[in-house]
Amino acid sequence: MNKTALLELLAAVERGDLTPAAASDRLASLPFEDIGHSRIDHHRALRTGLPEVIYAAGKSPAQTAEIFTRMASAGHDVLATRADEPTALAVLASVPEATYHPQARAITLRQSMHPEPRGHVAVVCAGTSDLPVAEEAAVTAELFNTRVTRLYDVGVAGIHRLLAVREQLASADAVIVCAGMEGALPSVVGGLVGVPVIAVPTSVGYGASFNGAAALLGMLNSCSPNVTVVNIDNGFGAAYTATLIGRVAHGG
Amino acid sequence: MNKTALLELLAAVERGDLTPAAASDRLASLPFEDIGHSRIDHHRALRTGLPEVIYAAGKSPAQTAEIFTRMASAGHDVLATRADEPTALAVLASVPEATYHPQARAITLRQSMHPEPRGHVAVVCAGTSDLPVAEEAAVTAELFNTRVTRLYDVGVAGIHRLLAVREQLASADAVIVCAGMEGALPSVVGGLVGVPVIAVPTSVGYGASFNGAAALLGMLNSCSPNVTVVNIDNGFGAAYTATLIGRVAHGG
Amino acid sequence: MNKTALLELLAAVERGDLTPAAASDRLASLPFEDIGHSRIDHHRALRTGLPEVIYAAGKSPAQTAEIFTRMASAGHDVLATRADEPTALAVLASVPEATYHPQARAITLRQSMHPEPRGHVAVVCAGTSDLPVAEEAAVTAELFNTRVTRLYDVGVAGIHRLLAVREQLASADAVIVCAGMEGALPSVVGGLVGVPVIAVPTSVGYGASFNGAAALLGMLNSCSPNVTVVNIDNGFGAAYTATLIGRVAHGG
Amino acid sequence: MNKTALLELLAAVERGDLTPAAASDRLASLPFEDIGHSRIDHHRALRTGLPEVIYAAGKSPAQTAEIFTRMASAGHDVLATRADEPTALAVLASVPEATYHPQARAITLRQSMHPEPRGHVAVVCAGTSDLPVAEEAAVTAELFNTRVTRLYDVGVAGIHRLLAVREQLASADAVIVCAGMEGALPSVVGGLVGVPVIAVPTSVGYGASFNGAAALLGMLNSCSPNVTVVNIDNGFGAAYTATLIGRVAHGG
Amino acid sequence: MNKTALLELLAAVERGDLTPAAASDRLASLPFEDIGHSRIDHHRALRTGLPEVIYAAGKSPAQTAEIFTRMASAGHDVLATRADEPTALAVLASVPEATYHPQARAITLRQSMHPEPRGHVAVVCAGTSDLPVAEEAAVTAELFNTRVTRLYDVGVAGIHRLLAVREQLASADAVIVCAGMEGALPSVVGGLVGVPVIAVPTSVGYGASFNGAAALLGMLNSCSPNVTVVNIDNGFGAAYTATLIGRVAHGG
Amino acid sequence: MNKTALLELLAAVERGDLTPAAASDRLASLPFEDIGHSRIDHHRALRTGLPEVIYAAGKSPAQTAEIFTRMASAGHDVLATRADEPTALAVLASVPEATYHPQARAITLRQSMHPEPRGHVAVVCAGTSDLPVAEEAAVTAELFNTRVTRLYDVGVAGIHRLLAVREQLASADAVIVCAGMEGALPSVVGGLVGVPVIAVPTSVGYGASFNGAAALLGMLNSCSPNVTVVNIDNGFGAAYTATLIGRVAHGG
Amino acid sequence: MNKTALLELLAAVERGDLTPAAASDRLASLPFEDIGHSRIDHHRALRTGLPEVIYAAGKSPAQTAEIFTRMASAGHDVLATRADEPTALAVLASVPEATYHPQARAITLRQSMHPEPRGHVAVVCAGTSDLPVAEEAAVTAELFNTRVTRLYDVGVAGIHRLLAVREQLASADAVIVCAGMEGALPSVVGGLVGVPVIAVPTSVGYGASFNGAAALLGMLNSCSPNVTVVNIDNGFGAAYTATLIGRVAHGG
Amino acid sequence: MNKTALLELLAAVERGDLTPAAASDRLASLPFEDIGHSRIDHHRALRTGLPEVIYAAGKSPAQTAEIFTRMASAGHDVLATRADEPTALAVLASVPEATYHPQARAITLRQSMHPEPRGHVAVVCAGTSDLPVAEEAAVTAELFNTRVTRLYDVGVAGIHRLLAVREQLASADAVIVCAGMEGALPSVVGGLVGVPVIAVPTSVGYGASFNGAAALLGMLNSCSPNVTVVNIDNGFGAAYTATLIGRVAHGG
Repeated sequence: MNKTALLELLAAVERGDLTPAAASDRLASLPFEDIGHSRIDHHRALRTGLPEVIYAAGKSPAQTAEIFTRMASAGHDVLATRADEPTALAVLASVPEATYHPQARAITLRQSMHPEPRGHVAVVCAGTSDLPVAEEAAVTAELFNTRVTRLYDVGVAGIHRLLAVREQLASADAVIVCAGMEGALPSVVGGLVGVPVIAVPTSVGYGASFNGAAALLGMLNSCSPNVTVVNIDNGFGAAYTATLIGRVAHGG
Repeated sequence: MNKTALLELLAAVERGDLTPAAASDRLASLPFEDIGHSRIDHHRALRTGLPEVIYAAGKSPAQTAEIFTRMASAGHDVLATRADEPTALAVLASVPEATYHPQARAITLRQSMHPEPRGHVAVVCAGTSDLPVAEEAAVTAELFNTRVTRLYDVGVAGIHRLLAVREQLASADAVIVCAGMEGALPSVVGGLVGVPVIAVPTSVGYGASFNGAAALLGMLNSCSPNVTVVNIDNGFGAAYTATLIGRVAHGG
Repeated sequence: MNKTALLELLAAVERGDLTPAAASDRLASLPFEDIGHSRIDHHRALRTGLPEVIYAAGKSPAQTAEIFTRMASAGHDVLATRADEPTALAVLASVPEATYHPQARAITLRQSMHPEPRGHVAVVCAGTSDLPVAEEAAVTAELFNTRVTRLYDVGVAGIHRLLAVREQLASADAVIVCAGMEGALPSVVGGLVGVPVIAVPTSVGYGASFNGAAALLGMLNSCSPNVTVVNIDNGFGAAYTATLIGRVAHGG
Repeated sequence: MNKTALLELLAAVERGDLTPAAASDRLASLPFEDIGHSRIDHHRALRTGLPEVIYAAGKSPAQTAEIFTRMASAGHDVLATRADEPTALAVLASVPEATYHPQARAITLRQSMHPEPRGHVAVVCAGTSDLPVAEEAAVTAELFNTRVTRLYDVGVAGIHRLLAVREQLASADAVIVCAGMEGALPSVVGGLVGVPVIAVPTSVGYGASFNGAAALLGMLNSCSPNVTVVNIDNGFGAAYTATLIGRVAHGG
Repeated sequence: MNKTALLELLAAVERGDLTPAAASDRLASLPFEDIGHSRIDHHRALRTGLPEVIYAAGKSPAQTAEIFTRMASAGHDVLATRADEPTALAVLASVPEATYHPQARAITLRQSMHPEPRGHVAVVCAGTSDLPVAEEAAVTAELFNTRVTRLYDVGVAGIHRLLAVREQLASADAVIVCAGMEGALPSVVGGLVGVPVIAVPTSVGYGASFNGAAALLGMLNSCSPNVTVVNIDNGFGAAYTATLIGRVAHGG
Repeated sequence: MNKTALLELLAAVERGDLTPAAASDRLASLPFEDIGHSRIDHHRALRTGLPEVIYAAGKSPAQTAEIFTRMASAGHDVLATRADEPTALAVLASVPEATYHPQARAITLRQSMHPEPRGHVAVVCAGTSDLPVAEEAAVTAELFNTRVTRLYDVGVAGIHRLLAVREQLASADAVIVCAGMEGALPSVVGGLVGVPVIAVPTSVGYGASFNGAAALLGMLNSCSPNVTVVNIDNGFGAAYTATLIGRVAHGG
Repeated sequence: MNKTALLELLAAVERGDLTPAAASDRLASLPFEDIGHSRIDHHRALRTGLPEVIYAAGKSPAQTAEIFTRMASAGHDVLATRADEPTALAVLASVPEATYHPQARAITLRQSMHPEPRGHVAVVCAGTSDLPVAEEAAVTAELFNTRVTRLYDVGVAGIHRLLAVREQLASADAVIVCAGMEGALPSVVGGLVGVPVIAVPTSVGYGASFNGAAALLGMLNSCSPNVTVVNIDNGFGAAYTATLIGRVAHGG
Repeated sequence: MNKTALLELLAAVERGDLTPAAASDRLASLPFEDIGHSRIDHHRALRTGLPEVIYAAGKSPAQTAEIFTRMASAGHDVLATRADEPTALAVLASVPEATYHPQARAITLRQSMHPEPRGHVAVVCAGTSDLPVAEEAAVTAELFNTRVTRLYDVGVAGIHRLLAVREQLASADAVIVCAGMEGALPSVVGGLVGVPVIAVPTSVGYGASFNGAAALLGMLNSCSPNVTVVNIDNGFGAAYTATLIGRVAHGG
């Protein structure tokens, strides 16, 4: 509820079109929908510019399918992340026009019309094992109508592979870098480009990688000042912010 | 060295203006300057768009002053962060036109001409104790020619203080949020705005705050997807990325 | 054994109704019952006001069923927490009048007469994934004869959802807040109400949530001074304390 | 701003006594006071029942003194915690009627009239070294008009010392237990009483106490279900919640 | 090889009964047996007084059975710990006179003649869930010819249960205390007895118990000075040391 | 209060020599002395066999001196550990016959008559830097009337130094091993002797020693089953348990 | 691309044999092969002296088989580590001449001609449970044409087993030591030999071994200065470095 | 004592030149010197090839000076690391021909004749703040008669600085890489060279660097297989191993 709407409501009270009691109720209630176990936030799109997203990992296939269907019915573009096979089957049974991306473990539904992408994001990953996280980022950004350049398997132990794609990196509005193990790649990429780098530590590794904690710490301590960090394996969050940057770069 | 420069160099070889050996040397040497204990990276400005910055905490006052002076002589805008009083005195003795910001613990020197700011960043902090970090961010962004709106002491335990500045938040290209203790503020701010939020955990707190680790973990686990995170107390890094976003929003 | 009972016992010795040896034995033995692998503490109800509860996670279905049956035979209200399906089957086979709450993973048996609830507790949770913990709290409080108001899916990233239930929060004697990820909700709730807030970190999250440790740390560092914390996923413990507060508020 | 106030405001609009624009401004602004580096929250007393408290550790003596003076001028009871000697001197210079409690490291100012205490809290500590934390709790509760029974140096290695004060424990509305090292005391106390126990881990110990983390973990894992926990050394927070419980027990 | 044996060997050289080369070989080779993947240490019994024990967790059933059989053939008493069902089947197939203790997850073989136990150990545990660890300790001590008094389910939240067995505790040469969760029991027991207490943290608990780390830290920080600690769930190690103490108490 | 004393007391009631009320008071009060900030436990000597000890680190010199003096007046042997220079001066001013051991940071007072030592303990340390901890152990054991053999600077990187003192190790009733860094020494010593080994991790080291945590973890994971562990730098606790073992070995 | 090749390329430009544009392309492209999900680094052999190795744990059997086959086709020796049974089947189906080593969980293919081994490495392990890691090291070194001496089950709790193989240790160019639990073995070995010791912590252990972290910390804090450390269970990495040392020792 | 010496000793017994008792003594005593608080290991040079080194951090200036003087008198080359100014003064007062290296915090004494260096080590560091650690490594290697090439301030955020020194890296027998913050440099260097890389994490950084733990974890998880790691700030240990590699490369 923005200031304009508030002034209109108050003017209606002034005109006598609305009683104070009714206005009080309206001021208290905001546009979300209660379906018992979840309160779907339909006006998030208005508030933050992008639709709410379903994190499927903590939900049953039936719960995810129900929320997905509700959101689809509201006409939104919908994204479910961390969706395993059974969840995908449950969603597709209800919303057959949705798409499952198995490597990214994501389900997408595009309902809006997007004449052409706004913003350009490069998604970089260090090794083959980082692909699921990188793909989660790429699929998310594409659903949000952002152009994606994928640059995979360019880890720092063979630095020439990264230098070979330097020009492609330089053309993006923002760069997402997914890496596990020592998490060194974002620092090197950060030194090569003049745009924000969003680092995604992945849980790839063993032993002292502590399920991605080593990569996370490495990225937080990056000596490249244009690096910010999201949670381990959070390809979705990185794409969300990268999309916002890309939009700003192309007219907000 | 971009592609154009490379083609010119190779054309000079083709024309016989340059011997292969001389070209080989040129290709190997890139423009940094070796002053013994540091290699100053003068062409970082070309490569990433903003000057290199001196992290003074690990250096003696004399080392910082020497690097600062070198960079100043090269005509750059210069920033030294984590500079204590003795370091400030050493720098100002050599470069009297520099400015010391004691709360931000930063020394700045502006030499470039900036007709008007490009980009607008809001710097938010949770409590009075977070001010040093917030000011480091604000001073950094201002030196980088970004407009800054300061919104301080709006922690989540009195949520009305934050809601009262909601419109000011909404007008920024990016929001920097500094908070210690539980680090909850970025999530709430993230839900209120549609632009990137850069979260800076601060070392404010005691006991189980573990010098900022609790706030850091909280921010990494934010349920607002437009939140990315930098290192504890790293106001500078947050401002660096926020500046890049602001530039992209105003013509790159 | 309180002071009155002790004086009566000693008076019996004085009167010669009881030999010193018999009195010594009585003083040494306290009312618990030894069934080999467990010592059931029947007089805990006298001592602390609420019956002992079975934590089923570390026990076999048969062990849980045996203890449950013993307690039921003693006429107590009985609660078993962290009870999976097989445990529920084993208990219900012995005590058919017990009830299994699958989402809360709890088995309850009410045998006492309770004319009307004493105390009122609000149970709040941040997201759909926190429901099992919130329901464990709610079911526990209800068995202990406390009125429960459930306010679910009101996480801080959409702060308007929480503000919309502000009046419901304000009417409770104590508020239980369950949240995973960054664990920010208790701080915001704590700032809205004037009663104790019991924060329950949940293991909901991934990566740097470290199975609820991030939420736990966040809650321990809450800037709202009316927040106390229990162990990760410990909905039962939160309800136990909230019940005690509610009883105090309604005549002890 | 409660519902009554809102209805009055809206009625004023209906009557034409207030323009919609003025009402809109009033709705947006809530009663806090901006003094540059801090936003003092005067209506917290209305909202949560107890005055805001100054955490002096992260502030300069001058900042603390300024905030303290402002709050004193507003007629509130005022409490500053973690106040060292220089801070106390600065505050007392401005507000001579304030009192400094050196062991508790607290500064208090009582301005309200309290005919007699409401609520009774027992403050227990394990050893002599825990006294500063226990005293912070006791001084806080007393300023908040709660009766305090101090039971110090009753650690579990000499369990008879604790059993000797059992009756005193049993008469309180809530018990605060401060303990460092292994933090075992709250569990034992919790088994002895039928009221909420608020456990305060202290940083007392060495080596594997990890500055109180061992005690904190012990308390979070308490096998007594009436134990909730606050941050390490947070005597103030424990007293705040204990006071709220005591008030509820004596008419809210 | 003790000094006597060395002198004998050297005397044989002096007498010419042994060549220097043969003596050199004898000095280099010590009595262990190489079976490829393991070097069985037959003379450990001579060196440390008790036979080597097989830790079965890291070995295949076949490997455990092979080592067990070898040791049995050498006439030793044999103990295998952390032995699951398949391992027990494999061992019993080869050594039918061995005994499997399922709760203790141990396989024992007694071949020595022990006229009567030497030493007396009390094994205490806090709750029913700690039984496997307590039983591992009890079975181990019994195989090593030590008398064992089991005192189970006497956790600190019902301190009267522990006080009721105080005399039984006082009669032992050493006390083993197994506890999970907050690990408080050894401190209380340590204050009640005048003999060494060996604390065994168990992995019983959830959330912030971190698989026994909370109990471990609590025990290491015990305020009772007669408490020493072994690894999480290490009932065997506790029994080993307790047995050594018991032997010392009864003639070494 | 043991059973005999209880029977006597009850018999006095039976005879009419004691009223029930007086008996009740006697039963409730146990022999400790309340001096305000501490409750001195005079009957600990009766209960556990050794006097209570003052941990001076968390106390002011004046507090330590007061407790020390009280204990001295009661005729006990007294030990204060972690006592710095100012504490020693304060104690010696009140109790001039006490002795300060600067390397061990301990103050001792022997008042009892001990015809000859009971028990023999070897104190081993890995390097010169471990001496303060080893000396705390040695001084403690000696005050407790135990014979001590010091074997210092025999770390595992020069294993021959340890093998050279093997016979001395073998003659002790218990061995205390102090080591920092990797904490490997107790495992090697444990394999050489047939008596209990009490491992004391020291905070000696840097970087990944994490102030002794690495040594602590190493010792807890010892592959020698006769090793138990105390807290980092806790030489006193090791000596306390070693003394108890030595007493058991020499007639209790 | 080394300097010689660069000079040749530039000379070709000078001669007119190559256009600047073509040379620019050649300079940018380095010899790796893009197969979609991986960029195989064929010239790593040239750059670092040993072929790239496939870490199979994070890859599907099909992915591993595809990469293995590609590398085999290029004529390289190939090694896949952490390969389970299904992966081995997939690889052997494509490359039947490869060998699966089940204990080492490795697949090897030797295609090069090696007249005789260069370098000699001793692989030592503490216990039977460390065998998989030790074998991964041994198989790797052998594929890289290094002579391997296996010395297994020589843990520090029976130090004579290690001393018995001292001469075998002394003859190697480098020693790899694999140990779990307390990780003490490398320190002892390091004191016995005058060559580099590469310590491999293994995840063998339980409880406070924290999956190998205790052994890792112990090794990093080794008091033997010739010890360096690799990641937990990283037998491959240890063998890689040991091989490089062995080659240096035998003519580079 | 090697096999030859043993055979000689036994032959002397055979010849009757040595009694068995005297031989037994000789076999038990190994050549170290006991000076009370330290056992100096003079024959380490024989056993491991390099002299023992004094770690001064845990010792008083007087202790360090005494050990240093003893070693100097024995004719050894001597190195004391982590020596502060007062320690240096104490050592130089006794051994004036020693040299203090303030940046490296090392004291060296060369007494041996070294005609020319054996082995060549490159010492690389990421930033100016890493210099003390890098210098400790360089000074150590030089004292051990190894040629050192220093390549400082070549961090990964400006990758061209590192590529510019690639040829210098390639000529070394081993490379030591010191880096704090994210610790990414060893991985990149490891990919550029075909020799062992010894990574030294430094405590340079702040916040989530956790005093070097982040860099340490990064290096342990390096994706370059020729990287091994030493403790945080352990420049000495890295140089020790690098020296051993260099010696092997130049004739052992």
